[in-house]
Amino acid sequence: MSLTDPDRLFPYDGALRGLARAIYSGIKDLPILSPHGHCDPRWFAENDRFPNPAELFVIPDHYVFRMLVSQGVPMEALGIARQDGSSVPQDPRKVWQLFADHFHLFRGTPSGLWLNHAFEHVFGFLEPLTPENADSYYDHIDDTLGMEQFRPRALFDRFKIECLATTEGALDDLRWHKQIIASDWAGRVITTYRPDAVVDPEFKGFAANLDAFGALTGEDIGSWAGYLNAHRTRRAYFRDHGATATDHGHPTAQTLDLPQDEAAALYAKVQSGDFTSAEAEAFRGQMLTEMARMSVEDGMVMQIHAGARRNHNASVYADFGRDMGFDIPQRTDFVSALKPMLDAVGMEPDLTILLFTLDETTYGRELAPLAGAYPALKLGPAWWFFDSPEGIKRYRQITTETCGFYNTAGFNDDTRAFCSIPARHDVSRRVDAAFLAELVATGRLTEEEAFDLARALTVDLVKSAYKL
Amino acid sequence: MSLTDPDRLFPYDGALRGLARAIYSGIKDLPILSPHGHCDPRWFAENDRFPNPAELFVIPDHYVFRMLVSQGVPMEALGIARQDGSSVPQDPRKVWQLFADHFHLFRGTPSGLWLNHAFEHVFGFLEPLTPENADSYYDHIDDTLGMEQFRPRALFDRFKIECLATTEGALDDLRWHKQIIASDWAGRVITTYRPDAVVDPEFKGFAANLDAFGALTGEDIGSWAGYLNAHRTRRAYFRDHGATATDHGHPTAQTLDLPQDEAAALYAKVQSGDFTSAEAEAFRGQMLTEMARMSVEDGMVMQIHAGARRNHNASVYADFGRDMGFDIPQRTDFVSALKPMLDAVGMEPDLTILLFTLDETTYGRELAPLAGAYPALKLGPAWWFFDSPEGIKRYRQITTETCGFYNTAGFNDDTRAFCSIPARHDVSRRVDAAFLAELVATGRLTEEEAFDLARALTVDLVKSAYKL
Amino acid sequence: MSLTDPDRLFPYDGALRGLARAIYSGIKDLPILSPHGHCDPRWFAENDRFPNPAELFVIPDHYVFRMLVSQGVPMEALGIARQDGSSVPQDPRKVWQLFADHFHLFRGTPSGLWLNHAFEHVFGFLEPLTPENADSYYDHIDDTLGMEQFRPRALFDRFKIECLATTEGALDDLRWHKQIIASDWAGRVITTYRPDAVVDPEFKGFAANLDAFGALTGEDIGSWAGYLNAHRTRRAYFRDHGATATDHGHPTAQTLDLPQDEAAALYAKVQSGDFTSAEAEAFRGQMLTEMARMSVEDGMVMQIHAGARRNHNASVYADFGRDMGFDIPQRTDFVSALKPMLDAVGMEPDLTILLFTLDETTYGRELAPLAGAYPALKLGPAWWFFDSPEGIKRYRQITTETCGFYNTAGFNDDTRAFCSIPARHDVSRRVDAAFLAELVATGRLTEEEAFDLARALTVDLVKSAYKL
Repeated sequence: MSLTDPDRLFPYDGALRGLARAIYSGIKDLPILSPHGHCDPRWFAENDRFPNPAELFVIPDHYVFRMLVSQGVPMEALGIARQDGSSVPQDPRKVWQLFADHFHLFRGTPSGLWLNHAFEHVFGFLEPLTPENADSYYDHIDDTLGMEQFRPRALFDRFKIECLATTEGALDDLRWHKQIIASDWAGRVITTYRPDAVVDPEFKGFAANLDAFGALTGEDIGSWAGYLNAHRTRRAYFRDHGATATDHGHPTAQTLDLPQDEAAALYAKVQSGDFTSAEAEAFRGQMLTEMARMSVEDGMVMQIHAGARRNHNASVYADFGRDMGFDIPQRTDFVSALKPMLDAVGMEPDLTILLFTLDETTYGRELAPLAGAYPALKLGPAWWFFDSPEGIKRYRQITTETCGFYNTAGFNDDTRAFCSIPARHDVSRRVDAAFLAELVATGRLTEEEAFDLARALTVDLVKSAYKL
Repeated sequence: MSLTDPDRLFPYDGALRGLARAIYSGIKDLPILSPHGHCDPRWFAENDRFPNPAELFVIPDHYVFRMLVSQGVPMEALGIARQDGSSVPQDPRKVWQLFADHFHLFRGTPSGLWLNHAFEHVFGFLEPLTPENADSYYDHIDDTLGMEQFRPRALFDRFKIECLATTEGALDDLRWHKQIIASDWAGRVITTYRPDAVVDPEFKGFAANLDAFGALTGEDIGSWAGYLNAHRTRRAYFRDHGATATDHGHPTAQTLDLPQDEAAALYAKVQSGDFTSAEAEAFRGQMLTEMARMSVEDGMVMQIHAGARRNHNASVYADFGRDMGFDIPQRTDFVSALKPMLDAVGMEPDLTILLFTLDETTYGRELAPLAGAYPALKLGPAWWFFDSPEGIKRYRQITTETCGFYNTAGFNDDTRAFCSIPARHDVSRRVDAAFLAELVATGRLTEEEAFDLARALTVDLVKSAYKL
Repeated sequence: MSLTDPDRLFPYDGALRGLARAIYSGIKDLPILSPHGHCDPRWFAENDRFPNPAELFVIPDHYVFRMLVSQGVPMEALGIARQDGSSVPQDPRKVWQLFADHFHLFRGTPSGLWLNHAFEHVFGFLEPLTPENADSYYDHIDDTLGMEQFRPRALFDRFKIECLATTEGALDDLRWHKQIIASDWAGRVITTYRPDAVVDPEFKGFAANLDAFGALTGEDIGSWAGYLNAHRTRRAYFRDHGATATDHGHPTAQTLDLPQDEAAALYAKVQSGDFTSAEAEAFRGQMLTEMARMSVEDGMVMQIHAGARRNHNASVYADFGRDMGFDIPQRTDFVSALKPMLDAVGMEPDLTILLFTLDETTYGRELAPLAGAYPALKLGPAWWFFDSPEGIKRYRQITTETCGFYNTAGFNDDTRAFCSIPARHDVSRRVDAAFLAELVATGRLTEEEAFDLARALTVDLVKSAYKL
């Protein structure tokens, strides 16, 4: 018995399955490039053991705990702390039991695939997690985590990660990255410049963040020019710590390209704290264009993750804060929204802007047509709720015919769940192999092309898109 | 020869087909739970014979006659009466002939499947309906309908319906349900509280409806508090006649949660008849939140059917009235629209709100993410135009990965075409079996899980979602 | 070796493949009806040889050159001339080499299929185009184009084109069509009335176009009545040159039905040149309804191609003009937008309005429900970016269940790339055959129905929809 089918996610027709298997076998052991994600660099800096199964698999992973919450399990019972400090700490073993009691909820979900993959391929389980064996599962994982070869760096190497990008805010001191660089460990953990906290006027603590931004850079953030220079300074600092890319998480894809005096006036407005939500949106939009221009200057790849309505539930946000599973996609326009930025820099041959969406209707209608025309644009992979077998398949089926494979950028795991990284990359490789096999079987690719493309989607396009 | 393929809607690959067949065989004979629909309770109260084939299959079924109208057949020729009484009555045999003449239009449609299923499995036909055999088809159906075992109650039992919910307006006296309850027949036919006519200020006759609402309940509908109490009174009355659920058919999913004094002022406005369409929309939105709060009080399950643009054609509406096949889906937002209601009651663990959409783009982008987080939300099944083999398949493919199976609620037939009930449930069971078989064959479920889930989707999740 | 798989685009399951092949074999040799496209009538009037491979395959085809541009190849290097005349002419052989160097970009795209189909089936290549063989490919195509049997008329006959519609502006003198009619060649090349340049107030040169329109027709275009009469006159003139249809390319599907005095005032406004973009949109919308009314009068079929955001990139438009690969689909509403026109003429049994969309979300939500109700409406085929194997499959999967096959209108190639016509029709026939085979294999059609439908989709529905 095992938790993972060796032919999982391949087509079920015999001949086609054989072809998919062959394509997959050419890529399954390639190193992992993880150019975007949310792992904690401290893991690799300090290399301490992961504390316990609940804190590894449940408590930090909103993919997981939201499913239990949706069926009525209270956040607190899962060990999620209230922001006001009033939560009673939970015994991690009890959290784990609750997780096991509800494990059937993950049937048919990518979380189910990822968890079972980690249980089998990282921890060696062959029996599924059940309410009955929750305790012995807990013990085995906990014991294993105590072993030297299950420390973060050892797992990083064992997972064959060639490069892992984390994501830090503009104000981050990058101490963990420094520590990694200074260490004798050869693992490549790079940072990514994510300036939302000093770009989004509606971000919590924006005014204070700007002050810190000025202090950190020595720039006069009282002026528009100084504020832009502060970004230039921090971008350079991030590049010095390995960053090749920036990342921008905006509620919409709105961009603007105001005359510089108007942009300066808008900056003064949002800095004053006295602004409307339309002005906040305008400022975010202007800053995407400014960031794109800086990318033309300094060569950093720009990622735009647009369309999440963050913190949808008021009480959950008030009680528990951000990233608590209540971020909901919303309808997103890219065609009008990106035009100002694209009129400014869209034809730049050396610029790369990667677009991510949570609105799948934009794949075929907007994103593939845009990426299939503008030299500066490429499509990021299927994101978040759509990083799944069906989601990746739809992404390929809908985008490939319009923008081809070469305007895409390989896979992102985008995770904070470290043990899910090999599982996620494996799912992507399998679904891509199955897709390529279908194209061969239906006369749309030669086998040689399919083998070549499989490698490109796994490694080459990632390296070129992210300049790794 | 037969009209229905015993392996219809299963995958065509041999091994996979065998698995789908096995899963299906475990559920095909389970009783039918029909928790939402529009059958006429009078059928079961009076148990009279159905009048004739045209009035059974064509005239009341807008799925059917709209297709003929779309190809130029006039409404009147199909026996649809003009509201002004000016129509010449049609010979039902001629209506039937016209239907047979155009039966090829239903090729590839779910109506085609349902009709052929009823022709074969209810009436015993093995030859397809053609223009040539229309008369003999008519005679056979007509004769059969005259037999005791083809009366409504006998068919209800023969269809193995364990529970059938009808839908009545808030002003309905429920006389037919009373008569059923008082009878010696054991069939369970329950009602559903559908208050649109006293909730939607733009509903025809709204002012008069409110007056009747007050008279019926003895509440002072001149006041907001009295109006809300009138709902409480009617909800209790409906519960006394079996209702476990309410139903709300709104053009959008907009909700609001105004302070009670503002809500009262808005009620006064719409009651006065002097209101804008924005105020009507606001009132409908406020009432969804009020209804949800009453559901927290009284335990009734709440269904929201949002997104139909009713009566799209002005002249058809003027001449023939409602439900004439000219209701068209429209783009629907749930993310912003539901937020006020969800901020009020979304985390209630004992509340169930079932969401239905006619905008499939919301499955993956909005509804599955919402249902995969909020304890109060579940997804209703694929609805109306999407209650079809491809529609149900897309529903499962797109929603399952994000909210799992357990945030869904089984199947609804939602029909006023009684003989289509077994056919519709059969289609749903087959498509679900095929979907589960694919997940097994691609390593995403075990066989045991698939068998268990098939039963859950057919029975268990319906009973729990609807509190049956 | 060959460039095209004889079983391409069929299902890969053996039995199902056999069935698809059988259905396809019944239609593969049927004549081509091309009722909408952008071939140049001059080709068939003058019957000169096509100049060279680059001007046949690359330079006029924005499907092709946009893909190279998206990967950083400059427009000029591809031989696209700047509007200001400043471009250095490119050696067509160098353009061809550049094309060959980037041919891998078309892997998995419909352009790749079409190009390989033409290379093999028109020019006899059996080896794929590579950077290495670009020169010999060039020579062979160039030599071949010089042969008598590769002149436009000979290819037209060889492609078995029974009828080819081109598209001309309202001001076109139709000289090439006259010349074809006057010639001894029997090929049927008809025109289509496309009045955008005198209907869209935002069209470049609108005022001058109106003056020319008046001069051409002898109508007083200073008045609304005269303007409408000018359309009547030109429509009659186009009908005299074979036209059976009109075509309208609008950014949205907005229609209006203003009282005639308001329409006249709006016309005066837009004619004056002093109008807002909302007024321009209103005028376009009013004109769709006027055109529909004229279609009721004169029997011309009306095509609405809605939803392209034309000339998305400001600098490409300024430098190179229209149709340069930077037209991007945008979200499109049909439900509200078409209501005014449908209230006016939607129930006309002899009117045919064909709807085309670039927003696939409207297939199931809006277009199929509308076409499945209104006698005047039919669905045009999958358009532009969605004229592709996956695009056509989605179109059938999503629309058929709601509006059936008989509210659709067969295939359009809609191309200006002459040699792609057989390839495009072949793709459509194969994908339809595969779709029909699946319906048979899953018990949704009989084989007899599938064979009959295949022919209907290829020939009969085209002829009836376009009155050919």
